[in-house]
Amino acid sequence: MRVQAQRILVSSARKFINTGALSRLWNLVKNFHAADISSLMDHLIFRDKLILFNVILEKDVEKTGEVLSEIDPEDAASIIKELQLEQITELFQIVPSDDVASILDLLPDDFKESILNAMEEKPSEDVKGLLHYEEETAGRIMSPEFYALDHNTNVSDAKTAMQLEGDVESAFYLYAVDDENRLVGVVSLRQLLFAPPNTPLRDIMVKDVISVHPETDQEEVARYVADYNFVAIPVVDSESTLIGVVTVDDIIDVIDKEATEDIYKMVSLDTTDRIQDSAFKSIKKRLPFLMFSLITASLAPFVVNHFKDTIKEFVTLAVFLPLVMALGGIAGNQTIAIIVREIAIGQTNWLTARKALLKEILVGIGNGIIIGSILAVASSLLIQNPYLGLILGLAIIINLFIAALVGTLIPLFLKLIKLDPALGSVNLLTMCTDTIGVLSFLGLGTIFLEFFV
Amino acid sequence: MRVQAQRILVSSARKFINTGALSRLWNLVKNFHAADISSLMDHLIFRDKLILFNVILEKDVEKTGEVLSEIDPEDAASIIKELQLEQITELFQIVPSDDVASILDLLPDDFKESILNAMEEKPSEDVKGLLHYEEETAGRIMSPEFYALDHNTNVSDAKTAMQLEGDVESAFYLYAVDDENRLVGVVSLRQLLFAPPNTPLRDIMVKDVISVHPETDQEEVARYVADYNFVAIPVVDSESTLIGVVTVDDIIDVIDKEATEDIYKMVSLDTTDRIQDSAFKSIKKRLPFLMFSLITASLAPFVVNHFKDTIKEFVTLAVFLPLVMALGGIAGNQTIAIIVREIAIGQTNWLTARKALLKEILVGIGNGIIIGSILAVASSLLIQNPYLGLILGLAIIINLFIAALVGTLIPLFLKLIKLDPALGSVNLLTMCTDTIGVLSFLGLGTIFLEFFV
Repeated sequence: MRVQAQRILVSSARKFINTGALSRLWNLVKNFHAADISSLMDHLIFRDKLILFNVILEKDVEKTGEVLSEIDPEDAASIIKELQLEQITELFQIVPSDDVASILDLLPDDFKESILNAMEEKPSEDVKGLLHYEEETAGRIMSPEFYALDHNTNVSDAKTAMQLEGDVESAFYLYAVDDENRLVGVVSLRQLLFAPPNTPLRDIMVKDVISVHPETDQEEVARYVADYNFVAIPVVDSESTLIGVVTVDDIIDVIDKEATEDIYKMVSLDTTDRIQDSAFKSIKKRLPFLMFSLITASLAPFVVNHFKDTIKEFVTLAVFLPLVMALGGIAGNQTIAIIVREIAIGQTNWLTARKALLKEILVGIGNGIIIGSILAVASSLLIQNPYLGLILGLAIIINLFIAALVGTLIPLFLKLIKLDPALGSVNLLTMCTDTIGVLSFLGLGTIFLEFFV
Repeated sequence: MRVQAQRILVSSARKFINTGALSRLWNLVKNFHAADISSLMDHLIFRDKLILFNVILEKDVEKTGEVLSEIDPEDAASIIKELQLEQITELFQIVPSDDVASILDLLPDDFKESILNAMEEKPSEDVKGLLHYEEETAGRIMSPEFYALDHNTNVSDAKTAMQLEGDVESAFYLYAVDDENRLVGVVSLRQLLFAPPNTPLRDIMVKDVISVHPETDQEEVARYVADYNFVAIPVVDSESTLIGVVTVDDIIDVIDKEATEDIYKMVSLDTTDRIQDSAFKSIKKRLPFLMFSLITASLAPFVVNHFKDTIKEFVTLAVFLPLVMALGGIAGNQTIAIIVREIAIGQTNWLTARKALLKEILVGIGNGIIIGSILAVASSLLIQNPYLGLILGLAIIINLFIAALVGTLIPLFLKLIKLDPALGSVNLLTMCTDTIGVLSFLGLGTIFLEFFV
């Protein structure tokens, strides 16, 4: 139903844009949530995105700001490049600072500077503060707006103070700080609603607040929020002073992004490669990885080259090469997927690594023996050569063992040298399983050659 | 630091369990958050999990309930099997109904029935209500507890009414219903905190609430929450009556689970296969998929078998077989990863499918021409045979084209026939690229054979 509605929506929007019916375009989208406008934009080419954006900007600056927060930062940056400086500063007054920071980061340095200089002082300072932290850290995704009051404040005064401060979007907690501005507790707005007016915050607050530092990796922040079922997590500096809050909506974006990155890195894809990119852009992004694949894939041919005489004498060996290679690759991919994913959701560290390695090796050998035996029997019956069946079975056992071994060690090793555990892991694995699979199969073939002919 | 602390924690817990120092075990964990106890349990064998669980149960039933919500439902079900009926009903009084439902679902039917009969009426009814819906739907993960009041109630009365109802955990909104109990609006607790006491809810509520039905797939619910930055989404029946609320913590679990499932299904893994499983259990889980792989991997050998004479005459062709196969597989995996992931995060539907297919084919041909040319030149220089270089280059172009074509079509086709787009996609792809890669390379080899010898 949602897809159906979207199809109609997209084709109407395109029609209105192409015929210049801009007021009809506005009527179409004016009651939409910013998220819906964002997903509509995903289906438009850039020129049309810009037209739609300008139509909304002309009619409703507030909504335009929301749209700018929702769309992909790369798209947002491209659109910003086409606007006047005054339009930009007006919009950046509305867009939350963390989103402004993500967009500015994608603009040329001099343009970024001139926008920051033209912005009003408060938002400009907030954004500069965020830009100061590394990408993909808590500091980058936190919002510098939150409710924080002294822990001696009573509930009634707290409500008044919060009301004076104005609405803080997606705030679900009031943080309590001590005389030296250190974070000492947290009160949910729900608790605040029900607490007697004279109670000081320190009597109802939860102490031992779990917090992160601005340098904390965003993935780690996401794990805390996921594990403890938080909707927000405070960010404190080295003096325990509260400097920001990471909210769950940003965490969901992080989790989505990291999951995509896991899959992409496993198969050696640039993490910014998107379906909407032009073919030319994607070719450029994938080519370096394919060149790398060309190198990793060139090892197995060298091994086969060594066994040319064996193949010439008993060409049936060549027939079964693809089978040995495919099964090793598939079993190794299974192991890699498990290890990468368990590392990502925080289940695996060095504590469990040895256990995991041992287990995967047992699984590899176990499945190798079963699949190898089936294959040995089947091929013996089919080819009428029991020796071929035997070496095929043995090669499968060896290859599934190798697949389990390198499939576990590659992600763990990549993690050890501080690289992403998924990075190019499937390429490296295929290189190992192809090469060792071919080597063991043709090696065994050469040893048993006298029995074949 | 977190890992370091956990390592010490796990080894202390094991020591206390093994030496029977159960009061020291309790002192170790008594101030822990349930999420921390849950991640400690992940590192213990089942017998030790049960000992730890019983220690906590004896000292603090409330905390035990929280732990039961946090741990994996499969673990929870295994533990429940070891408890007395009275202990179970006492715990299920505390555990949220949606978690109880997930656990009960994993127990034998007669045991499930006797637990439901022994439970007090209210929670038992709630759980039965949830069990009534299909797995992986909104109905299954929603909580039947929420704040809902008539839209004519004023703010002050609303606060009193909510206070009387008691604390509803992770409630961030008050829902407004009309005279016929239909959901008509939503008020955030933040708004409620600041609104003047005499204002009726209908004046401050947001109308046009986005809601889902209990049958809505949990992935779709997750997309709504992620797209609209909600912390909770109401679930209504066909009469628009509010029947539950799905909160963002459950959504994060769904997103994590679905991301893992995407990766697992791509490489043909059972989605319940975990690093903590015994080797025997994992062998059993992976074997059917490897048997399936045995079938998909057996197609290429048939093709090679057909070209035995060609290989016998020019055995260098066998040398390059692994290269053609590996490059096709790697390029195809890239395409599959992109399509599967974009379908998962809701970017791709039939609307964009044709565009995606065309683009991927262009990318495949483009990269094929570049990689194929490099390989053609390199191998010509190395082997001193320009014809071999030519057919190798051509085979790579064909195989990268096929990889793009089937890499796009497999997930889209699986989605069309209502299967998971990722399901076994890498196996099916490898089958196609291996077979067609080998066919085109050896086929071209046969045609050009006269030039080789």
